[in-house]
Amino acid sequence: MVVLELHIKPTFAHTIPHNISIYFFSSLQMDPNACSMQHSHCVEMTMEVHQVVPPPHKSTLHKLKARLKETFFPDDPLRQFKGQPLKRKLVLGAQYLFPILEWGPKYSFKLFKSDLVSGLTIASLAIPQGISYAKLANLPPIVGLYSSFVPPLVYAVLGSSRDLAVGPVSIASLVMGSMLRQEVSPTADPVLFLQLAFTSTFFAGLFQASLGILRLGFIIDFLSKAILIGFMAGAAIIVSLQQLKSLLGITHFTNQMGLIPVMTSVRMDFTYLYYLKFYFCGFSAVVMANDTDGDVLSSATTISQTRYLSQPSIKKPKLFWVSAGAPLLSVIISTLLVFAAKAQNHGISVIGKLQQGINPPSWNMLRFHGTHLGLIMKTGLITGILSLTEGIAVGRTFAALKNYKVDGNKEMMAIGFMNMVGSSTSCYVTTGAFSRSAVNNNAGAKTAVSNVVMSVTVMVTLLFLMPLFQYTPNVVLGAIIVTAVIGLIDLPAAYNIWKIDKFDFLVMLVAFMGVLFISVQGGLGLAVGLSTFKILMQITRPKTVMLGKIPGTDIYRNLHQYKEAVRIPGFLILSIEAPINFANITYLNERTLRWIEEEENIKEQLNLRFLILEMSAVSAIDTSGISLFKELKATLEKKGVELVLVNPLAEVIEKLKKVDEASDFIQADNLFLTVGEAIASLSSAMKSQSSTL
Amino acid sequence: MVVLELHIKPTFAHTIPHNISIYFFSSLQMDPNACSMQHSHCVEMTMEVHQVVPPPHKSTLHKLKARLKETFFPDDPLRQFKGQPLKRKLVLGAQYLFPILEWGPKYSFKLFKSDLVSGLTIASLAIPQGISYAKLANLPPIVGLYSSFVPPLVYAVLGSSRDLAVGPVSIASLVMGSMLRQEVSPTADPVLFLQLAFTSTFFAGLFQASLGILRLGFIIDFLSKAILIGFMAGAAIIVSLQQLKSLLGITHFTNQMGLIPVMTSVRMDFTYLYYLKFYFCGFSAVVMANDTDGDVLSSATTISQTRYLSQPSIKKPKLFWVSAGAPLLSVIISTLLVFAAKAQNHGISVIGKLQQGINPPSWNMLRFHGTHLGLIMKTGLITGILSLTEGIAVGRTFAALKNYKVDGNKEMMAIGFMNMVGSSTSCYVTTGAFSRSAVNNNAGAKTAVSNVVMSVTVMVTLLFLMPLFQYTPNVVLGAIIVTAVIGLIDLPAAYNIWKIDKFDFLVMLVAFMGVLFISVQGGLGLAVGLSTFKILMQITRPKTVMLGKIPGTDIYRNLHQYKEAVRIPGFLILSIEAPINFANITYLNERTLRWIEEEENIKEQLNLRFLILEMSAVSAIDTSGISLFKELKATLEKKGVELVLVNPLAEVIEKLKKVDEASDFIQADNLFLTVGEAIASLSSAMKSQSSTL
Repeated sequence: MVVLELHIKPTFAHTIPHNISIYFFSSLQMDPNACSMQHSHCVEMTMEVHQVVPPPHKSTLHKLKARLKETFFPDDPLRQFKGQPLKRKLVLGAQYLFPILEWGPKYSFKLFKSDLVSGLTIASLAIPQGISYAKLANLPPIVGLYSSFVPPLVYAVLGSSRDLAVGPVSIASLVMGSMLRQEVSPTADPVLFLQLAFTSTFFAGLFQASLGILRLGFIIDFLSKAILIGFMAGAAIIVSLQQLKSLLGITHFTNQMGLIPVMTSVRMDFTYLYYLKFYFCGFSAVVMANDTDGDVLSSATTISQTRYLSQPSIKKPKLFWVSAGAPLLSVIISTLLVFAAKAQNHGISVIGKLQQGINPPSWNMLRFHGTHLGLIMKTGLITGILSLTEGIAVGRTFAALKNYKVDGNKEMMAIGFMNMVGSSTSCYVTTGAFSRSAVNNNAGAKTAVSNVVMSVTVMVTLLFLMPLFQYTPNVVLGAIIVTAVIGLIDLPAAYNIWKIDKFDFLVMLVAFMGVLFISVQGGLGLAVGLSTFKILMQITRPKTVMLGKIPGTDIYRNLHQYKEAVRIPGFLILSIEAPINFANITYLNERTLRWIEEEENIKEQLNLRFLILEMSAVSAIDTSGISLFKELKATLEKKGVELVLVNPLAEVIEKLKKVDEASDFIQADNLFLTVGEAIASLSSAMKSQSSTL
Repeated sequence: MVVLELHIKPTFAHTIPHNISIYFFSSLQMDPNACSMQHSHCVEMTMEVHQVVPPPHKSTLHKLKARLKETFFPDDPLRQFKGQPLKRKLVLGAQYLFPILEWGPKYSFKLFKSDLVSGLTIASLAIPQGISYAKLANLPPIVGLYSSFVPPLVYAVLGSSRDLAVGPVSIASLVMGSMLRQEVSPTADPVLFLQLAFTSTFFAGLFQASLGILRLGFIIDFLSKAILIGFMAGAAIIVSLQQLKSLLGITHFTNQMGLIPVMTSVRMDFTYLYYLKFYFCGFSAVVMANDTDGDVLSSATTISQTRYLSQPSIKKPKLFWVSAGAPLLSVIISTLLVFAAKAQNHGISVIGKLQQGINPPSWNMLRFHGTHLGLIMKTGLITGILSLTEGIAVGRTFAALKNYKVDGNKEMMAIGFMNMVGSSTSCYVTTGAFSRSAVNNNAGAKTAVSNVVMSVTVMVTLLFLMPLFQYTPNVVLGAIIVTAVIGLIDLPAAYNIWKIDKFDFLVMLVAFMGVLFISVQGGLGLAVGLSTFKILMQITRPKTVMLGKIPGTDIYRNLHQYKEAVRIPGFLILSIEAPINFANITYLNERTLRWIEEEENIKEQLNLRFLILEMSAVSAIDTSGISLFKELKATLEKKGVELVLVNPLAEVIEKLKKVDEASDFIQADNLFLTVGEAIASLSSAMKSQSSTL
């Protein structure tokens, strides 16, 4: 028998040499024939046991500063300013506030060619969609065009996304229209309704900009992808149903938004339909469907899938140009048809005369007092959050796709400022639209100049082409809305969520049903509440997992997950998988004692000697958490079980040490860096104890 | 040079043999003189790399069941029923509902002797305190005695704590009195006020019992120790200030509870004091102070410290009997003094005539309709939660001390039922009192029979001794209240919290200030909101920590905490210390990319090749979390960095595998069980790659 003895000098002040047998070698012995080191059986060496140390001391102020920085400046936006001369700092600062200063000077004719094409393409979408969405918000159609003129210009100067196509969007339009209609009728008092809409837009902008300036952008993260999928599907159905009014030409339509009142309206009014109207509408709808359906739909689905599943590629639909041009084409064809057939005299409702000229100022229409202020602020808040979520998500998706960075908080300031400017120039709430941004990207947009091109095109339309829209039938606008929003229903994403996470699916369903049967705010609120509740429950009921040794290694893992892992007799090794705090100490206490009781009942061959708590996943602890250890230690002592802590992380060991100064309750021999070292050290101590007895 | 070659057969189906050099040996070479195995330099062996496996498949229903069980039945109360015959099950069930059936049959005369002494002791406290606390709640003094008669009897049958002394308590009395006074004046409409009080008590009981039956007891955990310390200190100050009315004999006292109105009342009225009154009051207060101050105070402090810091011992105050008897003694002496001096005719206010006889029924006084229902329910809810928190905490403290178990949800049902019965027998809200339970325990109580003894003593008082209280001066009751509540101000505990956790201290301060300057509900609500917000922030801004190798080992730990740990060139090892979900993916994405950018800026000697995410602390993931990995992988690929995951836990690997079926994005060679194995395997792959080039 050969005995090899290895002496290792303790190289660090905090390591204590212990005399223990090394399991590593004995485990190699399992198959002696395969092992040429057969005599290692009796290898004994002096091995280090590593001590757990607290992190270097830092003052409370210093920690607070670090914490605040991580909370509000995780992207460290001032990093690039460091070490630069003052002049450079000023330039960088200006570029930070106005990204146009960064890319503007490098702008070339080649880029402009791309931007021109894409700008014209999105303009051809923006004009009919602008008119349609304004009607969705119960606003005069022209406001939709105004909103496609000023905001894109503002965004081109302030925004940092190169692909965002700015303008009114369906969801925010729907929500604004339906919320404001709760108190003011858009037909009985159109001026007041317009005032409320502009003031809501101002508050939406103010709220968005504040989120950005106060760096509270993470609030929109609580609208998770699951919530958005459910919410948008519900909203799409409601929007589509509301278009039944124009599609079927129903005259007495409900003012409410829910599924039930809309369905009731449709049923009640259905019998009164004029046959002529019905057929003409049907015909128009079919024209529309043929023109745009497959392609706009597939493009919208593609972008929405991209967003949800974050696939790094957007496939260009084959009939892309047809799809992009279809809405405008439908408007032109149907307008010509109505004009030719003089169908407006046969019960087909048309847009009618529109005022020529660019946006009139509207700051005198902002109302910061009066009875409706509460509603205005609520509407501003909700449309602000919704449009911000859409804008930021679209911006981030394309930034990731093209490998550039979009600063979320900076974007919020840009979108917020854009809406505040918009509210004084007759625009209602705008943001970066899903579908139009996808078209913009497909058409080859390179910079925000495509927004400028679109804006100029809309301006030309406003100045010179308004009379052409006089005969555009409302039914076409309805069809445009329906085709745009139907693509927001993302069944594959919903199926994916079902497959991966059932709770997320439930959240999605709550958002969907809530929007359909309660209200937009109600559905969103319920779903956000439910998902926040889930997070809290993860903390309140943290997982505790029993660990075992994976044979032949020093690795300890979940016994349930790794079937080959084995228990070490006399030890109960639990891993706690959450921060320990006031919300879960009662549970952890009860659960740990239950583990021990179960232990006592089952295995009577060897008494439980040590409870090892593996703390690698306990990221934080508070004063209640500290008291849990004290309580546990006292209870365990009565049962003759010793409490051992393994790998407490920086914050935890720091606080334990602070308590220790007073009461000395966690000694070095109950504190180990790894489970392996703890077991080795404790079982050798146990053995030497029993041999001396 | 000796080359030892070790071949280890892969013993488990999932282990893949890799050819790698073992770092363990080379690290032993640091001090060649101390090492007798000098030729191990070239040891090469075939080492296993362990694969990460998902846990065995379970159906959604099965998982849901397990989850619900952990959420609502963490203590597994039905465990003892398993495998028992039906008859035994019925007996166990009856014992579960009525713990008296468990200890009753074993009850002995020896136990009764202890219970008799302790029961008489707490009765001597309960009678003066009952009268005082009823006045604190603006109720007739006799209601305080009624409340010390019926509820203790109910608790003796239903409760599982052996030490709880049941009766009215100061905090709940204060809150009920001040909340109900917001709408109804106790002097102008005493009958209505009494009706509101009884109905609130009914709702408090209903709420408490529901929490227990629905097993939602964890809700009271959100009133953390820090909040309770702050809240009780604030409440104690307010209660004490309100006693200035009787202590100083002020006639025009405020009805409000806040610090500011009370201080204003005191200042305004101070100059109008009759000298006689002032001196007499001063005298009484001094008597009181001498009698009880030091001892009741120290007993209360001890129990409250025990509760907060969970020290496993309560030291018996030296002058225990003096302290326990002092309130009754003060009442007797002062009553005799008033009677002898006929002081009630000289402006000293006394209790006055009290009705003789035990509790009249009061179910006809419960009002479940009318204008005050909202206030009643709110009062019931808040007093219910507060009294429940006190009762459960006291019960748990003594159970831990004497090593028996108290089932929280069961206790809630007992306390709730007790209050519902109380509300129909002229009692207001009761629970287990801090100070009286400590006295009970010190006096040697063994079972709930001490409550029965107290109850019988109170009954005797109610039947025969009521005329004796006619001359008891109100000032003594004020002094009893002040001495009882002053002990609730726990400065050492507050200092301890300051030392360990600054945020908890802030929460405590908010509760304290909120109760003083806003209201009881306001202060509690703010503090609970703040501490819940902290939990959410821990999830929204999880810690990411850079790991390094502790030299001479295979252990990877926080570089900031373990100063000797070293970086491995070409690798960035980050540990994520929170579940990954919708609330933090944006942050984690940004933060990870910032880590990598900082990396690229600093070390230009060796390019970053691998980002290793150590996931041991990621206890859960949702669909958004999955998309983070997809996004990260795509972004990293563009930078030429490979994403490697280490030790994803059961739930995480399960979900990753589910996504993998579709998109194959986490391959086995990017997934390791330990950081050590990952580094070893990847660097040998890197080396063989560069040697073949």
